[in-house]
Amino acid sequence: MAPPTTIFYGAVISPESLTSYKALPRCLLSVGASGTIDWMVDDVQEHVLQETLAQKGCIDVDVITLPAGEFLLPGFIDTHTHAPQLPNLGSGQQHELLDWLSDVTFPMEAKFSDVEFARRTYESVVRRVINCGTTTCCYYGSLHLESTKVLADIVHASGQRAFVGKCNMDRNCPDYYVEASAEVSINETKQLISHIRSLASRPNAQSSSRPHLVQPILTPRFAISCTPELLTSLGKMASSDPSLHIQTHISENKAEIAFTKELFPDAPHYAGVYDSFGLLRPNTILAHAVHLEDTELELIAKRKAGISHCPTSNFNLSSGVAPIGVYLDRGIKVGLGTDVSGGFSPSILTCIQNASIASKILAIQAGTHGTSPTQFSNRQLPVATLLYLATLGGAEVCHIDKTVGSLAPGMSFDALLVNTRSIAGNPGLWSPDTDTPGKGKEALDGLLERFLFCGDDRNISRVYVEGRFIGGNNYRANN
Amino acid sequence: MAPPTTIFYGAVISPESLTSYKALPRCLLSVGASGTIDWMVDDVQEHVLQETLAQKGCIDVDVITLPAGEFLLPGFIDTHTHAPQLPNLGSGQQHELLDWLSDVTFPMEAKFSDVEFARRTYESVVRRVINCGTTTCCYYGSLHLESTKVLADIVHASGQRAFVGKCNMDRNCPDYYVEASAEVSINETKQLISHIRSLASRPNAQSSSRPHLVQPILTPRFAISCTPELLTSLGKMASSDPSLHIQTHISENKAEIAFTKELFPDAPHYAGVYDSFGLLRPNTILAHAVHLEDTELELIAKRKAGISHCPTSNFNLSSGVAPIGVYLDRGIKVGLGTDVSGGFSPSILTCIQNASIASKILAIQAGTHGTSPTQFSNRQLPVATLLYLATLGGAEVCHIDKTVGSLAPGMSFDALLVNTRSIAGNPGLWSPDTDTPGKGKEALDGLLERFLFCGDDRNISRVYVEGRFIGGNNYRANN
Repeated sequence: MAPPTTIFYGAVISPESLTSYKALPRCLLSVGASGTIDWMVDDVQEHVLQETLAQKGCIDVDVITLPAGEFLLPGFIDTHTHAPQLPNLGSGQQHELLDWLSDVTFPMEAKFSDVEFARRTYESVVRRVINCGTTTCCYYGSLHLESTKVLADIVHASGQRAFVGKCNMDRNCPDYYVEASAEVSINETKQLISHIRSLASRPNAQSSSRPHLVQPILTPRFAISCTPELLTSLGKMASSDPSLHIQTHISENKAEIAFTKELFPDAPHYAGVYDSFGLLRPNTILAHAVHLEDTELELIAKRKAGISHCPTSNFNLSSGVAPIGVYLDRGIKVGLGTDVSGGFSPSILTCIQNASIASKILAIQAGTHGTSPTQFSNRQLPVATLLYLATLGGAEVCHIDKTVGSLAPGMSFDALLVNTRSIAGNPGLWSPDTDTPGKGKEALDGLLERFLFCGDDRNISRVYVEGRFIGGNNYRANN
Repeated sequence: MAPPTTIFYGAVISPESLTSYKALPRCLLSVGASGTIDWMVDDVQEHVLQETLAQKGCIDVDVITLPAGEFLLPGFIDTHTHAPQLPNLGSGQQHELLDWLSDVTFPMEAKFSDVEFARRTYESVVRRVINCGTTTCCYYGSLHLESTKVLADIVHASGQRAFVGKCNMDRNCPDYYVEASAEVSINETKQLISHIRSLASRPNAQSSSRPHLVQPILTPRFAISCTPELLTSLGKMASSDPSLHIQTHISENKAEIAFTKELFPDAPHYAGVYDSFGLLRPNTILAHAVHLEDTELELIAKRKAGISHCPTSNFNLSSGVAPIGVYLDRGIKVGLGTDVSGGFSPSILTCIQNASIASKILAIQAGTHGTSPTQFSNRQLPVATLLYLATLGGAEVCHIDKTVGSLAPGMSFDALLVNTRSIAGNPGLWSPDTDTPGKGKEALDGLLERFLFCGDDRNISRVYVEGRFIGGNNYRANN
């Protein structure tokens, strides 16, 4: 059931560009029955609230009034995570990528051949990811068709917006965890796509004319694990269906890059491998991108593919520090990815903190200080940029920025109700109610920074997707 | 009132050295009425539990049995934080040190001239720090005598172990926040020391013969903010009382170092400034130490002073990456410091995660891979080392490692009861009960790593200092 019209009155924060966001302390925002933001009126003083509502034709309506210390924010977009790796969170930090895959990751993912184990685990995975404030998530499943169907079913039932793919991986993987052939891989991928697209007609499907909340995504794991035959077939599928999204890894680790070049000696570089099979396009998500060459950047920019920046994982697996500022300066789309369990946290907030740290490390190395209004390369990323990457930047990478990523009329209400008050119970966020903050824009700027650097799931009271209340701390308390 | 004997049966983890820790899945541990660990028996199978207790003379005693997923760990030691800066948590991340002090920090600290504001704020500060699992804390107060007395009173009443100092700062600070003279600074410091030492005879003082839980500490803010006259007087106080601890900052930021050298042109280097006034000794805590010269390291090692590694702050204020591995290889004592609010988290867990990241960044830059059994320089720090720095290393830096930092007979029971189970409610820590872990040492190693990388205050059920239950998640639930 679609929710009825919901009207909020209070603070709203929404990204505008890489360097600016709107912070509206007294905004009136109406979400229609379809889950879309119908209208917003800025700077509504309390004494004209009823009058303003009446002008909008709203008489005798309930209004959700946010107290000081609470605000609405676009939901977080996690552009890269692995659902079957959540049970490994915080394990194996001593490894680098290739050893970590063989010693930690593949053994865990192999367990998802057991559909009941997958069902039990994915129920918890999706609930945790939603409660961390992720309204859109790009999930890698395992290689298993049935378990990945189950993942899609659970995401669908939860009301989260997501892309769900099963890994394509038919070589250079252990015997116990590899696809039998490129043909099997392609057949099962087609079955998964049909299954996910059929969810649109199932109960809990939204009634709007937008694309369905859960969409399939082609997921060649990485070049190393895919035969040219498999990549060729995936490329054909992609070219026959331009709406189909694609996600994969690129240039995460130096040993991985060397092995890729060995396997594809004719490709000019790592990005060139994917491009030669037609897999680099505006709805392609490239995770990591730590060590790209200049000509690769040119190609990625030309193809309008997006990059998922995974700083927690890049630190944790000693992969390196991705020069995100350089990519932004070249106009490449960038979003954030938790990359669980290469990253040790399912929260985009941790990712934001580590994206800030990564940018500061590059600035320290370059000897630059402060931010620059015209340049991101070798500069620390300001709060506005971090917010952008976590929301609208992620939406661009997912090619859904006309639908989500900001709060504005016509956009889907995919949003978080953030609560920075002490009642939220997070001792790491100093509550403004302890110290009586103002209610103006400056106070709101301060709250945003505190939330991004000190917040956790307890500060996310409500998670909305397309207007539906699907998770968050208040949701947990009532379910 | 001292607690009666408490006996725990379950998993215990305790550091042994920089590269090893004990993980005892079935340990019987008895805490005496004085708060000291009386005895421990390792590897007690359930069927011999009563027999083992009887051998220890314990008949009909209550035993706290820990379920799988819970373990005891030494309490965290925060070797560097600023109590009056907690209200600024997560603010001002765009600044570097000197601007951050003038724009963000000094205005907040100045508010502590209001003793009632200080009382209200410090009640919350100390409660938060304890609930994050910090059993010993090195607190900088503001420059105000009365408010810092209040801080000491609150810490005393809470039962936390701590060093509390008021900042000495009589120059190069804003007019509204600077001490009137070196003489005033010294007089007030003496009054604070008397006040803190008098707490030993107040209610809630422990009855043991150990040094009192709350101790004074000389706190010259940093060389820049102290006149030679003030440093001379502090040096005299120190030399007349070798038991008096000292805490200060060193080599955090390049602009700070340059200014220090300008102010003290005769000193060979930054460490030499403190040394020339007799302030470098085995109970001196030097915070940050990001950019030390080789000869400074020699001097610090010779004086047996300790370093407080503050990686979150060093990243956040773009100070740099402290080469902790180099210090460890030279035998210098190292602990961890949250450095709130240069650091954006009051939790030593965040510090552990960022200490890991800092070490990996240095390893990436050096092109080294993995850990080394004989060398820390330019290597990632393994879990054992991170645990050591957070506990026993911190105790060494505080010069109290004969009393706290590890769990062993004769040591004070300053400990955390860690709960990694799903019931703790932290969505970022994948609960072992979801996936039925073993109960052996290997499972315990896994739990420790998960807790250090994914845990938060919700996973700290109980915080004990000298045998008393003073905080944690279960404490909050009941208070």
